[in-house]
Amino acid sequence: MTTPAFDHPFLCGLLGDDEVAAYLSADADIRAMLSFERALAKAESIHGLIPEKAASRIADACKGFTADMAGLKAATARDGVVVPELIKQLRKSVGGDAAEHIHFGATSQDVIDTSLMIRLKSIAFLFSGRLGAAIFALDALDREFGQNTLMGHTRMQAAIPIAVSDRLRTWRAPLELYRGRLTEQSFPVQFGGAAGTLDKLGDKAAAIRASLAQELGLADEPQWQSQRAMIADLTNLFSLITGSLGKMGQDIALLAQAGGEIELAGGGGSSAMAHKQNPVAAETLVALARFNAAQLSAIHQSLVHEQERSGAAWTLEWLVIPQMVMATAAALRLARELTGNILRLGRS
Amino acid sequence: MTTPAFDHPFLCGLLGDDEVAAYLSADADIRAMLSFERALAKAESIHGLIPEKAASRIADACKGFTADMAGLKAATARDGVVVPELIKQLRKSVGGDAAEHIHFGATSQDVIDTSLMIRLKSIAFLFSGRLGAAIFALDALDREFGQNTLMGHTRMQAAIPIAVSDRLRTWRAPLELYRGRLTEQSFPVQFGGAAGTLDKLGDKAAAIRASLAQELGLADEPQWQSQRAMIADLTNLFSLITGSLGKMGQDIALLAQAGGEIELAGGGGSSAMAHKQNPVAAETLVALARFNAAQLSAIHQSLVHEQERSGAAWTLEWLVIPQMVMATAAALRLARELTGNILRLGRS
Amino acid sequence: MTTPAFDHPFLCGLLGDDEVAAYLSADADIRAMLSFERALAKAESIHGLIPEKAASRIADACKGFTADMAGLKAATARDGVVVPELIKQLRKSVGGDAAEHIHFGATSQDVIDTSLMIRLKSIAFLFSGRLGAAIFALDALDREFGQNTLMGHTRMQAAIPIAVSDRLRTWRAPLELYRGRLTEQSFPVQFGGAAGTLDKLGDKAAAIRASLAQELGLADEPQWQSQRAMIADLTNLFSLITGSLGKMGQDIALLAQAGGEIELAGGGGSSAMAHKQNPVAAETLVALARFNAAQLSAIHQSLVHEQERSGAAWTLEWLVIPQMVMATAAALRLARELTGNILRLGRS
Amino acid sequence: MTTPAFDHPFLCGLLGDDEVAAYLSADADIRAMLSFERALAKAESIHGLIPEKAASRIADACKGFTADMAGLKAATARDGVVVPELIKQLRKSVGGDAAEHIHFGATSQDVIDTSLMIRLKSIAFLFSGRLGAAIFALDALDREFGQNTLMGHTRMQAAIPIAVSDRLRTWRAPLELYRGRLTEQSFPVQFGGAAGTLDKLGDKAAAIRASLAQELGLADEPQWQSQRAMIADLTNLFSLITGSLGKMGQDIALLAQAGGEIELAGGGGSSAMAHKQNPVAAETLVALARFNAAQLSAIHQSLVHEQERSGAAWTLEWLVIPQMVMATAAALRLARELTGNILRLGRS
Repeated sequence: MTTPAFDHPFLCGLLGDDEVAAYLSADADIRAMLSFERALAKAESIHGLIPEKAASRIADACKGFTADMAGLKAATARDGVVVPELIKQLRKSVGGDAAEHIHFGATSQDVIDTSLMIRLKSIAFLFSGRLGAAIFALDALDREFGQNTLMGHTRMQAAIPIAVSDRLRTWRAPLELYRGRLTEQSFPVQFGGAAGTLDKLGDKAAAIRASLAQELGLADEPQWQSQRAMIADLTNLFSLITGSLGKMGQDIALLAQAGGEIELAGGGGSSAMAHKQNPVAAETLVALARFNAAQLSAIHQSLVHEQERSGAAWTLEWLVIPQMVMATAAALRLARELTGNILRLGRS
Repeated sequence: MTTPAFDHPFLCGLLGDDEVAAYLSADADIRAMLSFERALAKAESIHGLIPEKAASRIADACKGFTADMAGLKAATARDGVVVPELIKQLRKSVGGDAAEHIHFGATSQDVIDTSLMIRLKSIAFLFSGRLGAAIFALDALDREFGQNTLMGHTRMQAAIPIAVSDRLRTWRAPLELYRGRLTEQSFPVQFGGAAGTLDKLGDKAAAIRASLAQELGLADEPQWQSQRAMIADLTNLFSLITGSLGKMGQDIALLAQAGGEIELAGGGGSSAMAHKQNPVAAETLVALARFNAAQLSAIHQSLVHEQERSGAAWTLEWLVIPQMVMATAAALRLARELTGNILRLGRS
Repeated sequence: MTTPAFDHPFLCGLLGDDEVAAYLSADADIRAMLSFERALAKAESIHGLIPEKAASRIADACKGFTADMAGLKAATARDGVVVPELIKQLRKSVGGDAAEHIHFGATSQDVIDTSLMIRLKSIAFLFSGRLGAAIFALDALDREFGQNTLMGHTRMQAAIPIAVSDRLRTWRAPLELYRGRLTEQSFPVQFGGAAGTLDKLGDKAAAIRASLAQELGLADEPQWQSQRAMIADLTNLFSLITGSLGKMGQDIALLAQAGGEIELAGGGGSSAMAHKQNPVAAETLVALARFNAAQLSAIHQSLVHEQERSGAAWTLEWLVIPQMVMATAAALRLARELTGNILRLGRS
Repeated sequence: MTTPAFDHPFLCGLLGDDEVAAYLSADADIRAMLSFERALAKAESIHGLIPEKAASRIADACKGFTADMAGLKAATARDGVVVPELIKQLRKSVGGDAAEHIHFGATSQDVIDTSLMIRLKSIAFLFSGRLGAAIFALDALDREFGQNTLMGHTRMQAAIPIAVSDRLRTWRAPLELYRGRLTEQSFPVQFGGAAGTLDKLGDKAAAIRASLAQELGLADEPQWQSQRAMIADLTNLFSLITGSLGKMGQDIALLAQAGGEIELAGGGGSSAMAHKQNPVAAETLVALARFNAAQLSAIHQSLVHEQERSGAAWTLEWLVIPQMVMATAAALRLARELTGNILRLGRS
């Protein structure tokens, strides 16, 4: 066990997800923050706030930029955010007059929140694909075993027989819903400046924000520095995904326990009992569901965001969002694996 | 202090809400459950499953029915749900052959979940109205004080001056969003029968469910007995409402503490310090936000709903949903009161 | 469903507990608050701060006092606490010079927190007795069925046979631990005055607090107005109790589902399936465990208690503590009932 | 932002803690698991269950053992736990007859839980020292500024003046309490075998467990494979620590906002406003408090531990415990730093 089960040298086999973790790395974050600075300079040059030359100089510098990570770490300890030091390093790298045009009118939160949106947009796309794969796997099970009979259970007791199709529908329908929502989800740029008023941009503020959003492929919306409904909604959706997959996992663990109505490939070994086949993925889905359910309350606590921008509420998000993403990624990966391991469902 | 602060003889002055509590009373629940039985009988008679006479006999009996509450309580202790006993009492009241046609093909969860939907639909309407009132009050403040200056604060420290309008926008915009969502919210009928398959209704199942939904003014959707995303989404919205109002409350408490930029009427007295004016409503908004944020995790835990229908996950919802409704109601009431008590905002 | 499932006209059959609810009623609270005022006057008269006559006049008035509940409610809405109005009513009832000596040097929080401690002390005593009864019932099961065999399960799968005694030990041991803790639990008086410094009592502050504590049968400890570890520890213990009973409930529901190794009397009926016997109490124990687990996070959120006394953090406690008490009470009641309904455990 | 803020390349400057993270590394875990296997072999040889030679051969192999990490990862993905593969690798390293005597009578959970206890014992010792340092720093502030005056605040409003000593006491007293608890905390060995009955050890089970505990410096207690009160209590204590430090952080942020009564060195820079000094550590303490408060509910959810050993509940602990440890470590580090940065408190 170590701090981050998701990135742990051996637990990551069970709980990690390399593909998604890449989007949450410091490198990906820095790349996305540099995109913001590059796009901002471009947008400001388009609207005449900074020289076009400066913008292209900044773009070049961003391309070749390598952060001094030790410097970023030390500065984050002091400033609570990485941005002031990152800008300082970037300015040094840009050099000359152009350096002063970097980050004009923006604040740390604009950079960090926008970087998060850029990456969550990609992650949502991945999740949507994985939901599709899980749905596809359930459809395949339905085609093969849908007509089989399963004992329906209510209040943990045998009730009346149902078709395997009936049970599969309760696993599948929520995933279909969530896939739709991920597809429709809008990821807005964050751009408000020091106190949310874009005070340095005058009457060009709206136009620059629109250009910035367009450049980054994000939605153009008024700043949401202290209004975090979007974050709460998205993490609610993540927890819905893990919750519904946890329900499927719980059902499969119960089927495996009862025996007779399911046949599973794989399944974990035991150090004490060689004969056992543990439905490890099924149980892990339950754990991930309960994990995200608890995390969501931390996100909702952070809705109480003091004044223009709260350090406390925002830092709380940093602690929670990445691990909700990882828990969701792991659950989607395990769901695909688990459904693929079902050799038989129900009785013919 | 007593169990339910929301219904407590004196705490309800602060935390209660008579208007909304009425929808959560046992009486309102029973009335809504009777609507279900009446509408079900009607739908089943329309589609020829039960005699029309029986349906109209059932409708009459529902109208005049008075429950034996002691009987309901004793039976709930035994059955874990009120419905079997309620149906028994209703059957006795209907009498004759018609009695046997009551509740045909339905299960307890159909009745209880549908009753909840009927009442939440009304509650959502009320909440939408209250959000409108809060928005209206903020608009009035904006007209009067919007041009005033306020010291913007980031990370709990004075940053740069902003207009009162800027701050008001961060309070108002989320409420506008939530009002829109409440208006669009769909409230589905629950109708699945014993194990979710409407096994007793044959090929008329879909038609009967559609008629039932129409009769009750609810949306016609496949049963969601073990698929609770709808519950999680609605309570997420409740917690968003209290969260954003809690942010406003926190901001107002901080303004009151700093002094100079706000003038408040009302405010609570102290038993120890006669000179104090406590921003009671502002603080209570924070408490209600944090309360709902914690409750939401219980709802998401209940997404892990075993098999066709889980007693454990469902009972957990019963413990949590009503109090999230009441916390939201209280917050909306207090928000209106608090905004109405702002005599001045910012400095001119 | 209504706001408080615990006090609901029919749900209380399942989830309520009259014996414990009595301690959480407004009446019990008022009586305990009056004890505080009476004991404070006595302590202050012993140490010469107020006339002995005044103290005995106050004691008499407290005995005969009936609150104007409508007045308390209206004032709580305004003041956020009931105490200023309660003192006002009490002063009127005392009359004369003595009236001015009521509540001398105290603040609302002293009264309300002490009232809570007085009642939680009684409740802890009740809980301790109920834990004893549950332990007794498990011992009886052990004597009767302890030598029987049960299939041990790990990771939801059959592992190796164990004795019924082995399983019973895992249910019983935590209850024994909690009973010990409840017995040792100290319930401190709260007495700090306006800002925690007992500023009006001069060098007699400590002596008066000691006398006050002794008079009320509480522990004498420095004020804890903003230091709520005691509340967090006690609610942690409540959630441990429901958690361990929830584990027992989950185990019993799983045994009932598997069949063969348990025989249960009672069990709830179904409105759709006459043949079913639902292990209602077992499932409800799981629901109550998950409920308290979520509530505990709200209590820990309230540890962030601003400055000398926070209205927000404290009001949050009011919303949560009583229902954690009620959930614990219901779980203890159901545990006794459930263990009493076990007719057979394991295979001989 | 990346998965684990605590181990993130630059966020760790703010939120990480190298000293404590070392105990949570995979290496430290493996070393502690090897201690278990070594000590078990020794205990079993003392009591004649395995040959003394085998025990000393195992001890030697443990000393020189290097894990094949890729193999551990792949196996954890399959088995849900690392132990079966670790034992397999260790057996290969031991070789000969002795290999078969490794892990005799034990199960994966015995190894993993005991490894956790070994490491938490060291961590508790570190935390106790850090609490001592924080107390020491508060004492120093008390000596220097204790007689200064501070405006006491209740319900976020100025109340009456208090001494700086009074405020410091509310910060210090809980830390003193927690330090005492950490010192008294008992860390038990876990040893139950496949289904908690030490079925393979016959009448020597108790004696071997006692020797094992002694060898590892842990307390000898009956197995607690499904009884997790100890975990819940310890994490409750962690959350109490962060909660009380969060209260101190909140108070300091509010003091800094009001100005005049505090002077702080350090404080973070802003990318938008060069003039600002943000009380970053104070805000971060609030974030960490709210983080742990939410995590605690996940731990309490895991009390509902199915049957002899639950994969789901246990995996949930793995996701949560390490990060609660890290949040506590970071808070203790920041508290020391923050108190050290207070240049003046109150007004003389």
